[in-house]
Amino acid sequence: MYANEYRFDGSSKLSLRAMPTGAEPWAKKKECVAQTEANLAQCAILQEKLYAAGLEGLVIAIQARDAAGKDSLVKKVFGKLNPAALEVHSFKAPSKEELSHDYLWRLNQKLPARGKIGVFNRSHYEDVLVTRVHQMEKGYAMPARVTEDKDFYKKRFAQLRNWEQYLYENGYRVVKVFLNVSKEEQRRRFLDRMELPEKHWKLSVGDMKERALWKEYDAAYEDAVNHTATQESPWYVLPADDKWYTRLLMSEILLEVLTDMSPEYPPLDPAEAAKVPQAMAELEEPLE
Amino acid sequence: MYANEYRFDGSSKLSLRAMPTGAEPWAKKKECVAQTEANLAQCAILQEKLYAAGLEGLVIAIQARDAAGKDSLVKKVFGKLNPAALEVHSFKAPSKEELSHDYLWRLNQKLPARGKIGVFNRSHYEDVLVTRVHQMEKGYAMPARVTEDKDFYKKRFAQLRNWEQYLYENGYRVVKVFLNVSKEEQRRRFLDRMELPEKHWKLSVGDMKERALWKEYDAAYEDAVNHTATQESPWYVLPADDKWYTRLLMSEILLEVLTDMSPEYPPLDPAEAAKVPQAMAELEEPLE
Repeated sequence: MYANEYRFDGSSKLSLRAMPTGAEPWAKKKECVAQTEANLAQCAILQEKLYAAGLEGLVIAIQARDAAGKDSLVKKVFGKLNPAALEVHSFKAPSKEELSHDYLWRLNQKLPARGKIGVFNRSHYEDVLVTRVHQMEKGYAMPARVTEDKDFYKKRFAQLRNWEQYLYENGYRVVKVFLNVSKEEQRRRFLDRMELPEKHWKLSVGDMKERALWKEYDAAYEDAVNHTATQESPWYVLPADDKWYTRLLMSEILLEVLTDMSPEYPPLDPAEAAKVPQAMAELEEPLE
Repeated sequence: MYANEYRFDGSSKLSLRAMPTGAEPWAKKKECVAQTEANLAQCAILQEKLYAAGLEGLVIAIQARDAAGKDSLVKKVFGKLNPAALEVHSFKAPSKEELSHDYLWRLNQKLPARGKIGVFNRSHYEDVLVTRVHQMEKGYAMPARVTEDKDFYKKRFAQLRNWEQYLYENGYRVVKVFLNVSKEEQRRRFLDRMELPEKHWKLSVGDMKERALWKEYDAAYEDAVNHTATQESPWYVLPADDKWYTRLLMSEILLEVLTDMSPEYPPLDPAEAAKVPQAMAELEEPLE
């Protein structure tokens, strides 16, 4: 699958400068859209089996800069799945209650039951990205042994690896996706938000200030990916300037992980099976 | 403090056969009760500071066989603290919803905010104790890679260590207490439950069947303690046949960890402090 070009599982280092932000030259939009549809139809069948079996859960964590297309990716790709076995959770700036607990607390609250797919629109990685770029940890209401620990982020990376490994060992898969948008494309999308009334609700001038920290975010993303990409919980750094291409890759990733989980409809319980002939006979009796 | 005699922090191995279940010969009940009261009065002062500061949280996990005195310990010791900054959570057999998530999920749901003390009456350790003695993991609705993993409990111990270390690195302390009751004293307490109407609500004949598995539980407790006792999250294996003695030790443990956390009332915020003279002048104006 094409998405493997953008996969990081610990066997190679990410350098964002080396990663494309747009569709590959060979990619034709019409064919890509058709392939995306076909992939998602397959995904929907596997999702049904995953739900019926209830043995394994899946978390897709989506990270990106503003206007990289997180919301539309959720709508256009995950919108093709059965919403009964899907949960989308968007993590914004933490509330006071959330800040008074450990940073994974709010994620744990929203973890889907096994059998479901959970999409995290922003995730536990915010705590090593925006937090780090703005050195927010210094102001946290926590003991000095934590906030003044020079290994603060090194420990966080270990914590994130441990948490994802723990989930894997307890019947979950965690896949992480970074939507890699270019500075120029982000500029165009911000301008759209200013000009189009139906996009005003997405406009935040505060978001735009983060553009000045582009390089700092690049470094934080690279460090996060390079410290937390594993075979079981890989990262995908997807070009995000051409949404139709991003969607194709996302559909491939979803199809691959679901195929690897290989869910099957559970067999009829023997106790239930024993009652079937009787129940069948009753159903065949003439209606009164 | 006497409780140090019963402390395990990874530097020595627990053998339950070597541990007393009753009060030490030198211990005099009247003096122990008075000392317990004095310790808890100190704890209450420290708890107030912990709550005011809101920087650090404390979890006390209490594990024991049935009738070892968990409930009365909670009532008699933790009942002396301010309930506004205290939470008691009792973990019983997991619900269907709890079983459909990772086993720490229900613990994470109940984790106190920093500034509070959380008492877990049974805890995350149930998942390496009753679960293990009855090989419940074989029947879990999880993929075979999990339920058939021969390192299942080895991994769980690592998961528990990681979780408690994660909490420590995020401003929490976790202290684990095992109430070590003798088989003879448990027999007496079960008989009480059968004979005294006000104790019938605690009676479960199913609980008594676990007596046949005494040695299996001994082995499971020893393994759990020996794999998860650390300097930051120690275990205390407390004699539980004489409740007044157990309470003394529990009050010492609580006092020690709170003292080590050394909470302080937070200083007045400078912005607030600047407004004090004005506010004071207003308060001193004569009433209309």
